[in-house]
Amino acid sequence: MADLIDRLPRAPAGERWAGDDAAVVQGEAGPLLLTVDVAVLGVHADPAVVGLDDLGWRAVAGALSDIAAMGGEVRHLLVAVAGPAGVDLDLLYDGVVAAAIHHGAAIVGGDLSAAGQLMVSVTVTGRMGGRDGGLMAPVGRDGARPGHELLVTGPLGASAAGLRLLRAGAGTGGIEGSAGIGPTGEPAVTASGAEASGIEASRAAAILAHRRPVARLAEGALACRAGVSAMMDLSDGLGLDSARLADASRVGVDLKTVPVHPAATAAEALGGGEDYELLMATSDPDALRRAFEDAGFPAPIPIGTCTGDIGIRLLGGKPLPAAGWEHPWG
Amino acid sequence: MADLIDRLPRAPAGERWAGDDAAVVQGEAGPLLLTVDVAVLGVHADPAVVGLDDLGWRAVAGALSDIAAMGGEVRHLLVAVAGPAGVDLDLLYDGVVAAAIHHGAAIVGGDLSAAGQLMVSVTVTGRMGGRDGGLMAPVGRDGARPGHELLVTGPLGASAAGLRLLRAGAGTGGIEGSAGIGPTGEPAVTASGAEASGIEASRAAAILAHRRPVARLAEGALACRAGVSAMMDLSDGLGLDSARLADASRVGVDLKTVPVHPAATAAEALGGGEDYELLMATSDPDALRRAFEDAGFPAPIPIGTCTGDIGIRLLGGKPLPAAGWEHPWG
Repeated sequence: MADLIDRLPRAPAGERWAGDDAAVVQGEAGPLLLTVDVAVLGVHADPAVVGLDDLGWRAVAGALSDIAAMGGEVRHLLVAVAGPAGVDLDLLYDGVVAAAIHHGAAIVGGDLSAAGQLMVSVTVTGRMGGRDGGLMAPVGRDGARPGHELLVTGPLGASAAGLRLLRAGAGTGGIEGSAGIGPTGEPAVTASGAEASGIEASRAAAILAHRRPVARLAEGALACRAGVSAMMDLSDGLGLDSARLADASRVGVDLKTVPVHPAATAAEALGGGEDYELLMATSDPDALRRAFEDAGFPAPIPIGTCTGDIGIRLLGGKPLPAAGWEHPWG
Repeated sequence: MADLIDRLPRAPAGERWAGDDAAVVQGEAGPLLLTVDVAVLGVHADPAVVGLDDLGWRAVAGALSDIAAMGGEVRHLLVAVAGPAGVDLDLLYDGVVAAAIHHGAAIVGGDLSAAGQLMVSVTVTGRMGGRDGGLMAPVGRDGARPGHELLVTGPLGASAAGLRLLRAGAGTGGIEGSAGIGPTGEPAVTASGAEASGIEASRAAAILAHRRPVARLAEGALACRAGVSAMMDLSDGLGLDSARLADASRVGVDLKTVPVHPAATAAEALGGGEDYELLMATSDPDALRRAFEDAGFPAPIPIGTCTGDIGIRLLGGKPLPAAGWEHPWG
């Protein structure tokens, strides 16, 4: 960890980050959000097409997305790494640090261990933003009610499309802009030149979405403020995750449409996951739309409604495929 | 995680543990302690001689020990597991849950992932106990001053001795009492029968210390209350860890003696680690001794003093061997 910690800003007065047995940060009254996410090389990132810096970024973004899905603000990260000798930890930490900076989270501690396979465990603490002199309440998955509208923060399938494009070009050098991270840690993936077509631009965006996904923290907090009744991040794909929200809320789902990212297929949009777009349920979609537009975000996309019969799982009038990233452990 | 979560008590009103994107617990003003520890099968636990339940227990105890070393009280655990299909998760969780109950910590969330090697990442949150209407301050490694006495909470080397004894008996069935965990999750390791000699009892204790180490949470809080100037847990062995405390405090160490567990060798006591005894520095060892005795704990064992010359690293007048568990990554 020493290498990682040496790169970080010093702890503010009264706090004590790395270098002792445990980190000490300033606690606050009110809800404390806690989540942990593990990313394993070869499971959550294909080493043939993404770098260790991408693995580091993806591990952090995936964990942060769980805080976004509650409507919270991120505070602190603990980053534990286990892996074989000879792993380029500097490169891994490039991505970890860049993702933390990008999302405004402070890495305050971690662990480093030997292991046969590279694994990154990211713990995040979060807090709720203020409203009316108090704090907002975290948004769970279980508050959707019959008649509530379902919306997502953006088109789906970009990450899965990006992985497909990367694999198609792997080893041929044919993926434009898939290499190279700028000195700020920001990805330098762009379509090449002024003549780049819309297709090329959307493909580049999909590749970026796979390598450097972004947790929708601002959107999650906005949705919370706008009073959504339920929310979750689409980490495993809309098919699986919308059923999870319906199960938790004891409602049915009647999806009318799935917004597909321009580089993605319909199957990727439904089952791809890892886009980290947010799925929201609300009784007042107009208020949600206004909140997003007032803050300069694209309007959330309506995809369907919640129904009173928990047995209803429909997409376009047909049974909703439970597609998505099923855990291989069954 | 579903299996693990199903075994746990329900969250109190106003909190939301597993089952959503992030756990929600009640935050408190004042210092918040955060730590993460990774235990990898084959690195931190020898699968030839300990069970997966022991791995789970050891992962939890090792993480909790970091809170003990700050003088804190444990609050919440997040347990992330990555491993191959077919791993006996039930057995692993037996040890995880038993250790959490034993130490009074609540498991509020986690993650489960596929990986080629079994790995357990344990995150712990902790708080400080109250004193004089306020909260105590966490104890770092960096507060020792020249002239302060160094003490440990108990004799050292038990865990290393236990591992040696387990390996010597592995596959022969010759280790008395090394199998069997009682229905409460408490280890049933005891020397056999009324004729058990002192040697047999100390060997059984060493094996227990290896399989089911205990974080010194009560002792750490007592030491904090008694005003120790620096503290850390001996996770990597006295030789290495005392040098770390000296480095952090910018003092020298002049050790007079190393208290050796009756089943251990001197080398195991100096370099073994994983005993999780606490190393403490204090200007008032009498107050520390009284605090421990008043609370019914064995008196801390004096082992030497801090000196003004940071270059001094002595044991019995000779250079202190920097023995201990050095990280294989160098």
